[in-house]
Amino acid sequence: MTVSETHTTPTPASARRRNGLGRYLPFLDWLLHYRRQDLTGDLLAGIIVTIMLVPQSMAYALLAGLPPQVGLYASILPLIVYGLLGSSRVLAVGPVAIVSLLVATGISPLAEQGGPEYVQLALTLALLVGIVQLIMGVVRLGFLVNFLSHPVLSGFTSAAAIVIGFSQVKHVLGFRVPRTEYFYQRVLYTLNHLGETNLVTLVIGLGSIGLLLFFKYKLGGLLRRWGLKETLIMPITKSAPLVVVLVSTLAVWGFRLHEGAGVAIVGGVPAGLPPLTMPTLDPGIWQLLLPTALAISFVGFMESISVAKSLASKRRQKVDADQELVALGAANLAATFTGGYPVTGGFSRSVVNFAAGAQTGLASIVTALLIALTVIFLTPLFYFLPKAVLAAIILVAVANLFDFKTVKHTWRYSKADFASLVVTFVAVLAIGVEKGILAGVATAILLFLWRTSRPHIAVVGRVGDSEHFRNVLRHEVQTCPHVLAIRVDQSLYFANTQYLETAILQMVADNPRVKHLVLIFSAVNFVDASALETLEELNRELGDAGVTLYFAEVKGPVMDRLKAVGFVDEIGPERFFLSTHQAMRQLECV
Amino acid sequence: MTVSETHTTPTPASARRRNGLGRYLPFLDWLLHYRRQDLTGDLLAGIIVTIMLVPQSMAYALLAGLPPQVGLYASILPLIVYGLLGSSRVLAVGPVAIVSLLVATGISPLAEQGGPEYVQLALTLALLVGIVQLIMGVVRLGFLVNFLSHPVLSGFTSAAAIVIGFSQVKHVLGFRVPRTEYFYQRVLYTLNHLGETNLVTLVIGLGSIGLLLFFKYKLGGLLRRWGLKETLIMPITKSAPLVVVLVSTLAVWGFRLHEGAGVAIVGGVPAGLPPLTMPTLDPGIWQLLLPTALAISFVGFMESISVAKSLASKRRQKVDADQELVALGAANLAATFTGGYPVTGGFSRSVVNFAAGAQTGLASIVTALLIALTVIFLTPLFYFLPKAVLAAIILVAVANLFDFKTVKHTWRYSKADFASLVVTFVAVLAIGVEKGILAGVATAILLFLWRTSRPHIAVVGRVGDSEHFRNVLRHEVQTCPHVLAIRVDQSLYFANTQYLETAILQMVADNPRVKHLVLIFSAVNFVDASALETLEELNRELGDAGVTLYFAEVKGPVMDRLKAVGFVDEIGPERFFLSTHQAMRQLECV
Repeated sequence: MTVSETHTTPTPASARRRNGLGRYLPFLDWLLHYRRQDLTGDLLAGIIVTIMLVPQSMAYALLAGLPPQVGLYASILPLIVYGLLGSSRVLAVGPVAIVSLLVATGISPLAEQGGPEYVQLALTLALLVGIVQLIMGVVRLGFLVNFLSHPVLSGFTSAAAIVIGFSQVKHVLGFRVPRTEYFYQRVLYTLNHLGETNLVTLVIGLGSIGLLLFFKYKLGGLLRRWGLKETLIMPITKSAPLVVVLVSTLAVWGFRLHEGAGVAIVGGVPAGLPPLTMPTLDPGIWQLLLPTALAISFVGFMESISVAKSLASKRRQKVDADQELVALGAANLAATFTGGYPVTGGFSRSVVNFAAGAQTGLASIVTALLIALTVIFLTPLFYFLPKAVLAAIILVAVANLFDFKTVKHTWRYSKADFASLVVTFVAVLAIGVEKGILAGVATAILLFLWRTSRPHIAVVGRVGDSEHFRNVLRHEVQTCPHVLAIRVDQSLYFANTQYLETAILQMVADNPRVKHLVLIFSAVNFVDASALETLEELNRELGDAGVTLYFAEVKGPVMDRLKAVGFVDEIGPERFFLSTHQAMRQLECV
Repeated sequence: MTVSETHTTPTPASARRRNGLGRYLPFLDWLLHYRRQDLTGDLLAGIIVTIMLVPQSMAYALLAGLPPQVGLYASILPLIVYGLLGSSRVLAVGPVAIVSLLVATGISPLAEQGGPEYVQLALTLALLVGIVQLIMGVVRLGFLVNFLSHPVLSGFTSAAAIVIGFSQVKHVLGFRVPRTEYFYQRVLYTLNHLGETNLVTLVIGLGSIGLLLFFKYKLGGLLRRWGLKETLIMPITKSAPLVVVLVSTLAVWGFRLHEGAGVAIVGGVPAGLPPLTMPTLDPGIWQLLLPTALAISFVGFMESISVAKSLASKRRQKVDADQELVALGAANLAATFTGGYPVTGGFSRSVVNFAAGAQTGLASIVTALLIALTVIFLTPLFYFLPKAVLAAIILVAVANLFDFKTVKHTWRYSKADFASLVVTFVAVLAIGVEKGILAGVATAILLFLWRTSRPHIAVVGRVGDSEHFRNVLRHEVQTCPHVLAIRVDQSLYFANTQYLETAILQMVADNPRVKHLVLIFSAVNFVDASALETLEELNRELGDAGVTLYFAEVKGPVMDRLKAVGFVDEIGPERFFLSTHQAMRQLECV
């Protein structure tokens, strides 16, 4: 059958893209088809995520240099907005570790941590992130994030885990480490001041870490052996942060550890719903914050979309990258006006949401409402909460960010990709978080240019009696002395055109009996203006050397351009062949 | 016959590369084989180039903001050094317009034009250019200049011609225009002060331009009609600058135009050989000059190598890019220590050298010696030389730098290449010479990334009864409903992997009867780590949709990696086919 028939087949319902309003307001989709049994999953997931999120959001706010309530505020309205607009049904949005780190490194040079100016800058940053993501979503620039390659992201995430983890060590040790520009300075300072460790704080910190690890790796198995129902095991194991928070708060309160032993505590957290806040509208400030906002927009979106995609594919659902940008952008705008700071989809949190049975965005809305109740009624309970416990929660969480598997895999697969991973990793630790990721992206692009600037060029011969021609170095093939058939394995553009010219002239010089040169363009996807000039030059030079130039397997789009500019006529249309086989037959080589 | 035979054929003498000492000291090559008849050509060419170069080098020094003798100094020792070390036998080195412009824009912010500090910075710049070019030549980084694509270079050159040409207008009008950061400011200033034009200066300037144009375009034909010998015509037409210099100098001297009419003159030019000079060795200064030095190294080399190559190919000679870098680097070091400023091979000058019959580097050495005689004995003659005449010489010379042909050609051939040309052109005029060229290079790279980030993806079908498969949209081909054969016309890497995944899933969704998907990798030259991950994901997603994934025509180097990392075993080796035809036969589609 001909292709026209195949291609006019109607799209089946199963693969139908969401269109119309449902595409831009995904909640219409799930609200219209909401089933009673969805509610159980959504409610349970909403509750479990709340249990995780309350301590986490305070911990990440501290990591960002913000008062703990800012983390809670960022976990209310943004979650509702994302629940309504997100194309993923299970992504759990809120404060996350890496974005918090980016906030801290971006704002710390501009204002004193924790002060009102700092809080104001954080919410202005959320505004910029929201605007950037909204614009990218609306003008469909989602593809831009692809310039953050996997190896770069992996190197960045692993290094960020170290920076974040180390930033919490001081809370566990119980002494202050001054902010410095470079990571190694903070490490040195800490090592030099180990004598100032507060032992009670250390015990609380290490105890919390131990308890968290026990819940995470052992408790599930134990409960299972004791015959507990699966549906109960998850809520219990995931309540680890809540348990350490309760136990440690009671201990500090009971033994007055914050007074006698000098254990640092969270202190007063204001009660009540988030205030209505306005961002700073000063263009000077915006300009200062823009690089950080771009980094958060990209990195936050990458983290979000990769979780959302992997969870959606498990249930055969789809996420729409551009709609995700819109939803995250709107969530960040919501954070701006309700005293929050930049948010994005969290990895472990979304996995828990998914596993606990979240079916729709309602789970997020349930979480948001429970957190709202928490800030209204429960904040006094956090007064005696030791900061070391929040640090322990972060430490255990970021340990998962290490990505040894990708490192090993990348090393085995490609040294160039591995190089961009290592450069990013080292650069983040050595020159800082934002410059580090920029260095990584630049390295990935340069390596790509380098790779394409020295194309693989193969002399090919005929495989047996077939019409196929393959690399003479890899296959047992037939060639003839008066024809050189060369396959160029790269599009031709300014960075590789000189290399190609030199290599071909050298091949001709090495094969003096050659009278005909066939350039096989099966892998040439475009020829830019610089390369076109080189081809013209090459044709002249080969002509001078008594060698005639032919082309085979030039792709349609490439041929169109070569024709339009007169190159085909200049060379002679009879010197272009549809297949290598035809060229070789014409040249009496097969 | 098999290929091993073809490939062991000994290299013929005609294509032999220069090896041993002759490669690094090219003068050994021509000195050993110097013939008596070469001498006539070298002497004549040396004399004619001197006639051109004396006024030109003073004019370009003025353009660079330097005293005129600096241009003459830069035309002595550097020419001898290049004559000995250059791999081109006809390249005429010395001050050129674009490098002079780069010197002016690079140094003017740091010191007052024409002052001793400025001169010192110019020769320090020559040192840095020399070092950069020497290093690039020795470690064989010549290929790096390829990142300056033809369209970018063309846009840059045309814009530079405008900037240079305009910088001379003030000399022709006879009033001062203050230096400003932006080009448009100088244009506005000039337009606002047209009333201050010195009419006598204007007459001298326009008269010189007229005379130069007459010599250039008309005189040759006239002399030929009068029956003059060809060998005499060229020396006469090329002496145009000398003639206007003599006539105008005599006029100023005779009518005391510099006093009464206020015509600006060159004034005292010190007599005697160039002084021995030492560059500044302050690392702070070096750092400030480095960007300019890099720009000059790249742009100067590009200008040089393109002339050298095109002239060499006319005589079936070769130039060696890395040796050229060494020779130009050494010439710049020579300029450093003899009171000069950065030099490179000039276009029109080299063409004249070639046409006048230069056979070896001796022609350059002759020129150098004649210029040395000039600075020893003839500088008093330049006292009354009007600056307007030097400006006229530059104006007529840079008019040739306009490259309308490339602009038209590029527009017709590729809108992306045209865009990088226009961006460079506009950026050089709008934001300045150095930033402009950087913007051009960045644009070219971004356009390349953009181009490769949205690969051409073709559904293919069988051509008649052949083993060839071609795009269904371009050819009359056969397909079948249960197999989708897709050819991906691009290497897979981080920037395009998402696009590919989306496009393929969409194609599958649009063709619900498809059970088998064949990815044809004939144009895939590498698959980076990010793309590998996407392929694994795509395999899972297609499996979920009940579609089996196959690969055909995977290239050797790509296959090696996919095997090494376990991807081939994961997919199943039986799902990889050498040719599309084999795959289609297996899937019962042919």
